[in-house]
Amino acid sequence: MFEKITIIGMGLIGSSLAHCINRAKLANKLVAADVNEDVCAKVRELGFADVVTPDIAKSVIGSDLVIMAVPVGAIHAVAEQIAPYMAPESVLSDVCSVKKSVIDAVEPLLPESVSLVPAHPIAGTEHSGPEAGFAELFDGRWCILTPSAGTPIKAVEKVTAFWEGCGAMIELMDADHHDLVLGITSHLPHLIAYTIVGTADELEDDIKSEVIKYSASGFRGFTRIAASDPIMWRDVFLNNREAVLEILQRFNEDLTAMQRAIRRGDGAYLEDVFTRTRQIRRQIMEMGPEGYPNPKLMRRMDPEENPEE
Amino acid sequence: MFEKITIIGMGLIGSSLAHCINRAKLANKLVAADVNEDVCAKVRELGFADVVTPDIAKSVIGSDLVIMAVPVGAIHAVAEQIAPYMAPESVLSDVCSVKKSVIDAVEPLLPESVSLVPAHPIAGTEHSGPEAGFAELFDGRWCILTPSAGTPIKAVEKVTAFWEGCGAMIELMDADHHDLVLGITSHLPHLIAYTIVGTADELEDDIKSEVIKYSASGFRGFTRIAASDPIMWRDVFLNNREAVLEILQRFNEDLTAMQRAIRRGDGAYLEDVFTRTRQIRRQIMEMGPEGYPNPKLMRRMDPEENPEE
Repeated sequence: MFEKITIIGMGLIGSSLAHCINRAKLANKLVAADVNEDVCAKVRELGFADVVTPDIAKSVIGSDLVIMAVPVGAIHAVAEQIAPYMAPESVLSDVCSVKKSVIDAVEPLLPESVSLVPAHPIAGTEHSGPEAGFAELFDGRWCILTPSAGTPIKAVEKVTAFWEGCGAMIELMDADHHDLVLGITSHLPHLIAYTIVGTADELEDDIKSEVIKYSASGFRGFTRIAASDPIMWRDVFLNNREAVLEILQRFNEDLTAMQRAIRRGDGAYLEDVFTRTRQIRRQIMEMGPEGYPNPKLMRRMDPEENPEE
Repeated sequence: MFEKITIIGMGLIGSSLAHCINRAKLANKLVAADVNEDVCAKVRELGFADVVTPDIAKSVIGSDLVIMAVPVGAIHAVAEQIAPYMAPESVLSDVCSVKKSVIDAVEPLLPESVSLVPAHPIAGTEHSGPEAGFAELFDGRWCILTPSAGTPIKAVEKVTAFWEGCGAMIELMDADHHDLVLGITSHLPHLIAYTIVGTADELEDDIKSEVIKYSASGFRGFTRIAASDPIMWRDVFLNNREAVLEILQRFNEDLTAMQRAIRRGDGAYLEDVFTRTRQIRRQIMEMGPEGYPNPKLMRRMDPEENPEE
């Protein structure tokens, strides 16, 4: 499908992409680049790339597809380094959870013949690093592409074919809209989970040990989310500030109303909210198999879910 | 072990207890009581009790162990009805997620020879009703007992033996302390999950459908918690008001600090919190097999968890 693919950043997503490329033979040559020498050594040891290099800039030479699998905060610096070395007519993509700021940071830097097709695979685990990757991570998962109006269709088609080769299902979306939707479905839940686990972390030691002991009563699920990569998530919040703050504002209002209902003993209000929220769960479960063609993989990738319900 | 056990309330916990009693032959006779005639009909159909009755008061006659498996808001009314019919030297227990208010509501009503041994099994699913019960629900899970200082040791031993017969591991705790610890590990996470799913529920229809579509990015886990029984949870918040409001206050302060950090672009603050929260996850995972002797059951009972990590 591609002559040569370069993946920059050998974290969970980058290394999983490497496994996908090997599994489906998507490229004749795979270059893995990472500024961290230790990570490069690990990737060489794992042996899933043809070339492993810490030289980001030159890693892209001659590649027809380059994917920046780095936190959004590193995107500008990476794009700046590679832009002069990108092959004519090549396609550049990324995997960030925020899309508007990627476009703003990268598009002005690119030579005219190079196309940017931003991508966001809705997949992940709370584990990080090149050992965490596996070929099935994207199977049956959504990957959202947010090309700008002027992006050549050919480039979008190439990135679509690439992600379908990785097992994903493609959706096209406007970058701003993506950032709002993901702000609700992903960024706010992560912020809340980080906060609640942080609150627990500041408890006195004896209570904290009991919180850990009895975590199965609800807290445990939050700790899984709050174990996600700190750098990646720091960058998400710094780069999707507006959407996150807007949805956080709504959440805060709703939490204040909840707090007031508890203080006043307003059982009717609580019961009403708790009844409405069941509907959304039902809709998600009904959607079930469509989004997840393979329940076995779903179990592996989305450990908080029970496909049997 | 017991001559006759009465379980009042045939929801998830009550029906699971019935299955446990049958599995381990914990009683010669099992009486299932529920005020709801439809529920009684369902229980008769499922056939897991010797006697099924809507007459709460008389259902306890001659039983040496009575368990109120009803929401905490219904405890006072149930205790009032059954108190005059409780057998001398019998033991009364419950399964509520809040313990202090159960003791306050029930102890003054009981004849002197009847002992109250409050119990809280840390187990559950988001499903409700008599069909939702299964015998393995409590296997390898904690059950916290919160007897008062004056409770006869014999009664505590009986309830301990009962829960161990149901597969649970026993822990003794002061009722107030229980309510604080569970306020953190269970009540606050449920409140937050209900709130965030409620916030999403109020979005415009087109965005809401996308939130459902891309729920796998974090939101989905919250919807599972927010699908829990509305009445039970309404009562939890009304009956553990003080502890929940106190811990909510801390959470709010932490969330405000997070919000401020995002607004100001304070990446160092975010990274620091996100790094600290990983520790708690690590401690919980280290504790792993101890709390969960049977990974297969754990998978079934705690679907948000992946025992393989």
